Amino acid sequence: MQKKHSIAFTEVTPTAKIAADTHGGRAKCLQRLIRLDLPVPRTIALPFEAVHALAAGEMLDMKRLLAPFGPDALLSVRPSSEDPDWGGPGAILNIGMNDARHAALSRSLGREAATALYLRFVQAFAVHVARLDAEMFDQRGEDGEAALAAALAAYEAETDEQFPQDPAHQLSEVLRSMARAWEGTSARLLRQARGAPADAGLGLVVQQMALGVGPGESGSGVIQFIDETTGEPCIKGRYLSQSQGRDALVQSKGALYLTKDPRGPSLEERAPECFTALIEYGRTIRTRLREEMQIEFTIENGRLHVLDAVRLRRSPRALLRSVVALAEDGIIPREEALCRIDPHALTELLHPQIDPEAPREVLLEGLGASPGAATGRIVFTAEAAQAAEAQGEGAILVRRETTPEDVRGMHAARGVLTEKGGMTSHAAVIARGIGVPCIVGASAMSLDLREHRITLEDGRVLGEGDLITIDGTSGEVLGGAVPLLEPALDDAFNSLMRWADAARDIGIRANADTPGDARMARTFAAEGIGLCRTEHMFFEEDRLTLMREMIFADAPEDRAAVLERLLPLQRADFEELFEIMQGQPVCIRLFDPPLHEFLPATREGLRELAEALDLPLSDVTRRVEALKEFNPMLGMRGVRLGITIPEIYDMQARAIFEATAEIARKGGTVVPEIMIPLVSARREVEIVKTRIDSTAAAVRTETGQDFAWRLGVMVETPRAALRAGDIAPNAEFLSFGTNDLTQMAYGLSRDDAGRFMSQYVRLGVFDEDPFHRLDTEGVGELLMIGAERGRAARGDVVLAVCGEHGGNPESIEFCRKAGFDYVSCSPFRVPVARLAAAQFALREAAGRKKSKLSQRLMEVFARPAE
Amino acid sequence: MQKKHSIAFTEVTPTAKIAADTHGGRAKCLQRLIRLDLPVPRTIALPFEAVHALAAGEMLDMKRLLAPFGPDALLSVRPSSEDPDWGGPGAILNIGMNDARHAALSRSLGREAATALYLRFVQAFAVHVARLDAEMFDQRGEDGEAALAAALAAYEAETDEQFPQDPAHQLSEVLRSMARAWEGTSARLLRQARGAPADAGLGLVVQQMALGVGPGESGSGVIQFIDETTGEPCIKGRYLSQSQGRDALVQSKGALYLTKDPRGPSLEERAPECFTALIEYGRTIRTRLREEMQIEFTIENGRLHVLDAVRLRRSPRALLRSVVALAEDGIIPREEALCRIDPHALTELLHPQIDPEAPREVLLEGLGASPGAATGRIVFTAEAAQAAEAQGEGAILVRRETTPEDVRGMHAARGVLTEKGGMTSHAAVIARGIGVPCIVGASAMSLDLREHRITLEDGRVLGEGDLITIDGTSGEVLGGAVPLLEPALDDAFNSLMRWADAARDIGIRANADTPGDARMARTFAAEGIGLCRTEHMFFEEDRLTLMREMIFADAPEDRAAVLERLLPLQRADFEELFEIMQGQPVCIRLFDPPLHEFLPATREGLRELAEALDLPLSDVTRRVEALKEFNPMLGMRGVRLGITIPEIYDMQARAIFEATAEIARKGGTVVPEIMIPLVSARREVEIVKTRIDSTAAAVRTETGQDFAWRLGVMVETPRAALRAGDIAPNAEFLSFGTNDLTQMAYGLSRDDAGRFMSQYVRLGVFDEDPFHRLDTEGVGELLMIGAERGRAARGDVVLAVCGEHGGNPESIEFCRKAGFDYVSCSPFRVPVARLAAAQFALREAAGRKKSKLSQRLMEVFARPAE
Repeated sequence: MQKKHSIAFTEVTPTAKIAADTHGGRAKCLQRLIRLDLPVPRTIALPFEAVHALAAGEMLDMKRLLAPFGPDALLSVRPSSEDPDWGGPGAILNIGMNDARHAALSRSLGREAATALYLRFVQAFAVHVARLDAEMFDQRGEDGEAALAAALAAYEAETDEQFPQDPAHQLSEVLRSMARAWEGTSARLLRQARGAPADAGLGLVVQQMALGVGPGESGSGVIQFIDETTGEPCIKGRYLSQSQGRDALVQSKGALYLTKDPRGPSLEERAPECFTALIEYGRTIRTRLREEMQIEFTIENGRLHVLDAVRLRRSPRALLRSVVALAEDGIIPREEALCRIDPHALTELLHPQIDPEAPREVLLEGLGASPGAATGRIVFTAEAAQAAEAQGEGAILVRRETTPEDVRGMHAARGVLTEKGGMTSHAAVIARGIGVPCIVGASAMSLDLREHRITLEDGRVLGEGDLITIDGTSGEVLGGAVPLLEPALDDAFNSLMRWADAARDIGIRANADTPGDARMARTFAAEGIGLCRTEHMFFEEDRLTLMREMIFADAPEDRAAVLERLLPLQRADFEELFEIMQGQPVCIRLFDPPLHEFLPATREGLRELAEALDLPLSDVTRRVEALKEFNPMLGMRGVRLGITIPEIYDMQARAIFEATAEIARKGGTVVPEIMIPLVSARREVEIVKTRIDSTAAAVRTETGQDFAWRLGVMVETPRAALRAGDIAPNAEFLSFGTNDLTQMAYGLSRDDAGRFMSQYVRLGVFDEDPFHRLDTEGVGELLMIGAERGRAARGDVVLAVCGEHGGNPESIEFCRKAGFDYVSCSPFRVPVARLAAAQFALREAAGRKKSKLSQRLMEVFARPAE
Repeated sequence: MQKKHSIAFTEVTPTAKIAADTHGGRAKCLQRLIRLDLPVPRTIALPFEAVHALAAGEMLDMKRLLAPFGPDALLSVRPSSEDPDWGGPGAILNIGMNDARHAALSRSLGREAATALYLRFVQAFAVHVARLDAEMFDQRGEDGEAALAAALAAYEAETDEQFPQDPAHQLSEVLRSMARAWEGTSARLLRQARGAPADAGLGLVVQQMALGVGPGESGSGVIQFIDETTGEPCIKGRYLSQSQGRDALVQSKGALYLTKDPRGPSLEERAPECFTALIEYGRTIRTRLREEMQIEFTIENGRLHVLDAVRLRRSPRALLRSVVALAEDGIIPREEALCRIDPHALTELLHPQIDPEAPREVLLEGLGASPGAATGRIVFTAEAAQAAEAQGEGAILVRRETTPEDVRGMHAARGVLTEKGGMTSHAAVIARGIGVPCIVGASAMSLDLREHRITLEDGRVLGEGDLITIDGTSGEVLGGAVPLLEPALDDAFNSLMRWADAARDIGIRANADTPGDARMARTFAAEGIGLCRTEHMFFEEDRLTLMREMIFADAPEDRAAVLERLLPLQRADFEELFEIMQGQPVCIRLFDPPLHEFLPATREGLRELAEALDLPLSDVTRRVEALKEFNPMLGMRGVRLGITIPEIYDMQARAIFEATAEIARKGGTVVPEIMIPLVSARREVEIVKTRIDSTAAAVRTETGQDFAWRLGVMVETPRAALRAGDIAPNAEFLSFGTNDLTQMAYGLSRDDAGRFMSQYVRLGVFDEDPFHRLDTEGVGELLMIGAERGRAARGDVVLAVCGEHGGNPESIEFCRKAGFDYVSCSPFRVPVARLAAAQFALREAAGRKKSKLSQRLMEVFARPAE
């Protein structure tokens, strides 16, 4: 039994009590337009609770609802959810049309126009309210009169009732139907996927129709004032005579340009006064609503009505440009501009992107592991990638998975594609670090590395030299060359970054292993290098041979002799890095990987090595076998090598100090930071520190140069975090390596996690891949414990996070709260990190001040910008 | 300049103030003998501070020191350190001998006896006091008179002084020399190695000589009342006429048996009264000194003197037997008996040992990784070991290192020898678990597995079938068969264990994977099984094939079908286990290892597998390759398999429940405990729990049997420890796997740590191998955090530690303090654990009561028993 109840609703007037969180964003926006004196047709807003009551079966006082509108008014109903992005049921127009009005309007507007209005309503009512089969009401191609008759007949046949003629009954049914649609399961799931809470409410807006059909200039259109892809100012939109709603966007035939255009007629010419008014309205709306909006308008017999205005959907680059423009025009404060950009969206701006307009022939899909797009010819080896680069040809390196030996090839390639691996596989991590687009885990391809051939699932074969384009953002591999959009490091980007730096209160450094990385770090304005991994320096051809000689040396003296030959090369590496980073700190991690990574894995490689070292193959094979490890991640690496084969760290420390002294000699300054990896006990630090101290003293004496340097520890074992109080007295800084810390806290190798991580996330076992987003509950607690104990033992210890997580906004927030001094991340994550850090600082300030401004900021922060 | 000072000393009388920690153990013991009215010659004790002052150059009031002794007395000086085991300088006898007394004693004792006394003193003084070259004073073979003359001449030639004639000067020099020897570096290092503190003091005992030379029955000897190897009561010792000190032990020629003996003359016959008195004294000493002592005695012209009594050095089994006898005779309380045995020493009693008397030809040395000795013929494969066992022949399995595929071979072998690996390698852990003697890391052998040949460093070659004996305690590999002592699970052992169980307050379970292990667990009176690893069950020939089929199955239904065939085998495993363990809890860990452990590693194995599965070799190779992992320890194993391939756990749960129901049907009871391995997040437990719950319900319905069971979690990742509060609500017990927890806390694989662990311990980087002794600071904190949070979330959660550390006394102490309910360890560690747990409980009780008894117990606890 239906309950009779007085459901509240409000006419939208400048003073009515209407808010986004009670009546929805559309109702609120319409009120704003009305306050700006824009010609908005009469509108009534139903709040969330009214719609909820309707869905529950309560009745509406239709007489009261209809009273404000004239007896002959046609009405529209549109959804008004709290956030327009959450969607809602489609608008229904021309409510009130029935046989009588059809006859009346035929007289005033002409038969054709009246019929179009009636037909549109019958179709919408039948399909969306009465839930009849849409196909039966698809009367396209038929003449208007016949179509209307057919639609009315179909309605009667299907429902055994005449099409409802009472406008009050029509409106009541439309409202109830839209209310129920919102409560349906699939609608709820859809809006939840868009970020809405489970109990999000729906408001409805009942508006008097401005008819876009009839005599004089009548029609409808939309207008916007910037390009939604580039963000450049322009007047853009469509207008279609004798149309309603957003018809102009759907039906291009006969649509008018807005501004004068050599290609055809324009609204500017057809209805210059309306056009001028629209431009004026647009300016007012932008200034007063403080946003780039798209305006929906109707001209009824030469008279302009503004029906609605919605936030313009923009590409990330257009959003950034328009938001910065709002701030530069003094419409919004810079702080608000900063908070309107989702930091993650910046990533897209730093890399070329596939033109969204371009056609895509998708050959294959994998995981988009390093963003950006690249076109190149397929190569299957690192050497081929380098050869291609040398010839100025772009290559896409295709591997089953990558190893440290591939790194130089990855640098040379335009993009990387692997069959195996997850978001944190070697390929993914390295590619993100050096900013090369990368797709991993493209397991649907069958890779024949001997024949240099890829077989796709449909049997097609790709070979060496074939041209492909990879989209490291979406994970798609496309055939051939596809048009790309270049990165957008424009003035707007730079302004935003400058503002971010002024607002943030945690340092951002970059992880940079090579001079190229270091230059990138400077480009993105990182405050120094937070992690320079030195092992890559040993994979170059000439050095690799020396490394192998060193590994095969029997006595410490022999090892030292080989390392003596590596010293000048390593010193030159550091000098170049220091030159680039002049005036900024450079944190160098001492040699970390297990030695077997430097030894050949193939039989052929072993044979070559035996030849190079002039040893019997069996000897070489045995030594290589003996160095193999069950779990290399948990084996003889990091400081364990530094202690058992101290000559390596001795050489590295000397190279660092000699380079530092050389810079000092030339009048520059650099304060190198030396970081010991994989520490688990205090004594490890003491032993290494003693040797480094004495190397520093020796270099000071030898060169006659004085220089400063700092020693720190990379906290990447759970034990080091727990024992940070022990360790800190010997460490001027503690830099938390969250990758390894995550591996060890979970007992999960990032290289092996790929096989089940997606399933784990899908089943909700993990909320998210902990290698992707910092696990604040587990790994985060280790960080907190380490930071707290480290600082308790040494008040001035510098605390940092380096590694993949460093650039993630969530990690930055966590680190700020835990009192860390800086985070370090891939150069390409630096802008993201700078913006995210600024947002957190502003958010905190807003929370502290509780001023009006900050209240408003809080509203903005409460949900992500588009 | 030497200072003159009055240094304190005391004559040893029943009422003198003498204590072991001021005057040393020997002085204290002599006082006790005097209190018992034993004929101890007059004795003066110099306390530690006196000896320290002497060494520092202070002077002694010799007149006062010598006063109590008659003017013609000869004196001895012996060391008296706080603990006799710490050693000290050798005794010096016959102080006071000079030319005049030589002449006088020649008259009273005869020339020969007097000369012997003088010569002995001159030699000792020259070598130990004047520090002259010992070779010059080695006058063996010369006639007494000539020897004395030569010694005096040599002294004069070397020192340019006459041999000192003043008894006061002689004694003063002897005392100072012994004082200084104690302070020397090498003496200090030696006693520190024996457990003495750096500042341990030395007391000295000056005693009037009872001369063992001269007229009538004169001589010296030692006597003890049990066998020092077996602990059996007996009268054992030697007596030598016309001798001094412990000569009877050194020089067997002419020595007498103590009791009547068909082989020769005896003291019992030669001096029956002295003999009877000695037996009586022995009884008194044992009762009143509450210890098995060895008595040093001298007969001077038919009169018996007791010079000294020292704690008898015994083998572990003799110690145990004698201590239990003391308790059973009511001489010491059982609690004290329990505290006198070092739990570690029990290990030796549980395994055959190489007879310490037997000659040893050491071929090779490695790390003694699993105690006990075994003789057998060399085999190089697990299959050969099984074949040898089938033929009733003992085999020693020699491998480079072992893998899970070798486990059955290890069960079949008498002993295991590997070239690689450390104390926690696969071979070591498994061998300890199943109680098979094992030596690992015998890297000096060159192993040719193709030719089935071992080449030793000296070029000797051992082949298949050669007989060797391995000593898993010492790590020695001996040639041929060597006589062994059988294990000593005798009445004394059982009594001690019974007393321990009455005293301890933490549960002890055993890790047991097989029925054999389970029987062993019952033998050693474990309170149930704390860890039953199920993966071994899948390595048997018929099962391995099914496992491989399961791994190669494409669809869940196919996997389930194969597992259906494994179900009855697995059910039978559990039924057998439950039968053996009737009435005790059995904690079963669900399948844990990565699947690739079940796949062949060799090309031949792959070919066989392809044949068995009727698949192309390339397919099989590809699948096997695809399952390989970079870090298997951190990969797809444990609950990760349980979630991604749930059919395995489904089958195991069903097998467990069906076996439980079958036992119930037969009228028995068993409460299986099901443990989920490698958990890192709450949701993992929830998902597995849901499936197991429904399997239990299904089996209840199908069988009509009701049964109880418990679900728990193995906490072996740091994250699981940190999140124990999250996990406990779904877990009735939390069992901490300290092996994996150690691996992950340190970021250190136990399989790979062997390469540098010894160096790390030697350099003091780690105090001890953390896989061997629980790292209480790091891993221990994770245990504490996990226990605390688990219990806070669920008050009745059962807390346990399983794995290698479980049986270590240090870990048991840690777990008791942290409030754990039980520890679980290898069956062979169970007795050690039971005793250690009892000691900790007694120690705590003693600390609480502070009674006299407990004070005394505390003294005993303060240092380990022999």
